[in-house]
Amino acid sequence: MTDHNHSTIKRAAVLVAGSWGTALASVLANNGYQVMLWTRNGEQADSINRTRVNSKFLPEMQLPDLIHATTDLKQALHDVELALFVAPSGAMREVAKQAAPFLSAETLIVHATKGFETDTLKRMTTVLSEELGRSPEQLVVLSGPSHAEEVIRKQPTTVVVASASIQAAEQAQDALMNTHFRVYTNPDVVGVEVAGAIKNIIALGAGLTDGLSFGDNAKAALLTRGLAEIGRLGSVMGANPLTFAGLAGVGDLVVTCTSKHSRNWRAGYMLADGTPLDEVLSRMGMVVEGVKTTRAAYDLAKQYDVEMPITFQLYEVLFANKEPRKAVEHLMGRLRTHEIEELV
Amino acid sequence: MTDHNHSTIKRAAVLVAGSWGTALASVLANNGYQVMLWTRNGEQADSINRTRVNSKFLPEMQLPDLIHATTDLKQALHDVELALFVAPSGAMREVAKQAAPFLSAETLIVHATKGFETDTLKRMTTVLSEELGRSPEQLVVLSGPSHAEEVIRKQPTTVVVASASIQAAEQAQDALMNTHFRVYTNPDVVGVEVAGAIKNIIALGAGLTDGLSFGDNAKAALLTRGLAEIGRLGSVMGANPLTFAGLAGVGDLVVTCTSKHSRNWRAGYMLADGTPLDEVLSRMGMVVEGVKTTRAAYDLAKQYDVEMPITFQLYEVLFANKEPRKAVEHLMGRLRTHEIEELV
Repeated sequence: MTDHNHSTIKRAAVLVAGSWGTALASVLANNGYQVMLWTRNGEQADSINRTRVNSKFLPEMQLPDLIHATTDLKQALHDVELALFVAPSGAMREVAKQAAPFLSAETLIVHATKGFETDTLKRMTTVLSEELGRSPEQLVVLSGPSHAEEVIRKQPTTVVVASASIQAAEQAQDALMNTHFRVYTNPDVVGVEVAGAIKNIIALGAGLTDGLSFGDNAKAALLTRGLAEIGRLGSVMGANPLTFAGLAGVGDLVVTCTSKHSRNWRAGYMLADGTPLDEVLSRMGMVVEGVKTTRAAYDLAKQYDVEMPITFQLYEVLFANKEPRKAVEHLMGRLRTHEIEELV
Repeated sequence: MTDHNHSTIKRAAVLVAGSWGTALASVLANNGYQVMLWTRNGEQADSINRTRVNSKFLPEMQLPDLIHATTDLKQALHDVELALFVAPSGAMREVAKQAAPFLSAETLIVHATKGFETDTLKRMTTVLSEELGRSPEQLVVLSGPSHAEEVIRKQPTTVVVASASIQAAEQAQDALMNTHFRVYTNPDVVGVEVAGAIKNIIALGAGLTDGLSFGDNAKAALLTRGLAEIGRLGSVMGANPLTFAGLAGVGDLVVTCTSKHSRNWRAGYMLADGTPLDEVLSRMGMVVEGVKTTRAAYDLAKQYDVEMPITFQLYEVLFANKEPRKAVEHLMGRLRTHEIEELV
């Protein structure tokens, strides 16, 4: 009887308990999964289990009862159908390394992290593949326009799950799909990962533009050129250009650049008045993926010999003390004369 | 002496004195043109000349001295290097018909109107070509993310001028380009006209989505699918798909859907609470291009056999009393399973 029950309750693990991980844990719990939400922070785990709120990342948002926070990785990953990795990009390798011994070969591996590994410039599926000993073709990435707060409130949200394996993508789709959270498959892992990472750089730029009061016309121009920049890097890395016209491309770019929910936008907005990067990051108190991603994309652009003017200007603002106004003015001034040249 | 001066002062005409026409007149005046701003309304002309403000469309915005408003079409078009048509799409044919006798063959014809002729479903360059007896290849369309208010305030703005004639496009570029107003050429007239028209439908939908508090995630999904819808119609009509990734495509779509300056967005927002269309339009007191465009695009979609789900739902809300919430729920529900199918 116990065994029977045990085998019919679907189990999933989410690593780690940031805002996006917690929101995705809620989706799985709403779909009937017993969700183990792993965090290194024992106080945070106790607080989530006691109060049903992740007070640091999603204050005042009630979490479903089927979520159980734990610091025990072995317990978290025991007998799970699906393991969802949502660690910050800089922590992904370490989290995967620790998780590897406890993962069964049957467990579906999905990640929802937007960024590259800074030193190696590797995509997150590459990092996971290396640490988990899985073929990258079996892995799934989830992305799209999805503020965590709205997902928890069950406001309609659409995302993409991409995998070289259509079976793996459809398994992730089945686990996560519900009336409010709509999940589409896409075979283009590279495109989805590149778009998700680079849009955080464009969002920093959009925050900077807004902080300097350049206006909506200028921000729309920045987004348009940002999308072209994402497309250029993605294409040389092997992506399908159509992906950038989809939810993980233009969809996520729009939501990240135009909503005050976005950390990257807020960090850019604070940088605009000359606040030094260190102070911006310490005031944010959360990982701002766009900062590390700017450094990685700068290196990738050089490696692949791709023009990425927004990334280059942001790099100078973040790491070479360039005055934000000069960077944005430079961007507004340097466009080509013929638009189509700019877009290819 | 008089003759000499007369021949060296560059002259331009703008028809008519709405907010966008007035903003473009300001750009030309800032570039040294003597600008004749034509309006049928004598009181409006007097008031603009006396107060330097277009109080109905751009209250509190000071206009350059080189703008002179007039109701005399012959005087407005006398000896002009450039005539800029910015009439509402429904009035374009009549304005062009009246202007035709006074236009010299040397005058460059540019339009900046976003919409189709409702009954004939013709694009604006077609209407102008027919009424002015010009080859459509000589005509220029101007479009892009450009709130009039920001243009008058000299906030950085980027637009596209498209023409089959590169000479005509570059002549328009030379006339309008300055430090704050950056103008790019694009040979794709069809793409620029279709994108400019259809984005107003998507903006109505975005207003509706916001009015119903669906959230930023849902709005980003709507924009993504709206861009795909624009691309589908544009492509069968002969556009270059790259145009939709540019300023007149995604750029204008983003600014129209995310800014409260946008009339179409505001109209959609008001419709969300069940306010009847007639009342919304009378409260707006200005042309809401998206309403007529919805009807035209609905007919074009049938004529070209193109899937345009957002346009079809908006059509039912505007003209068949469909409940706005049902329309948006229908849109959120009907997406396909595989994203790439949706995008092509």
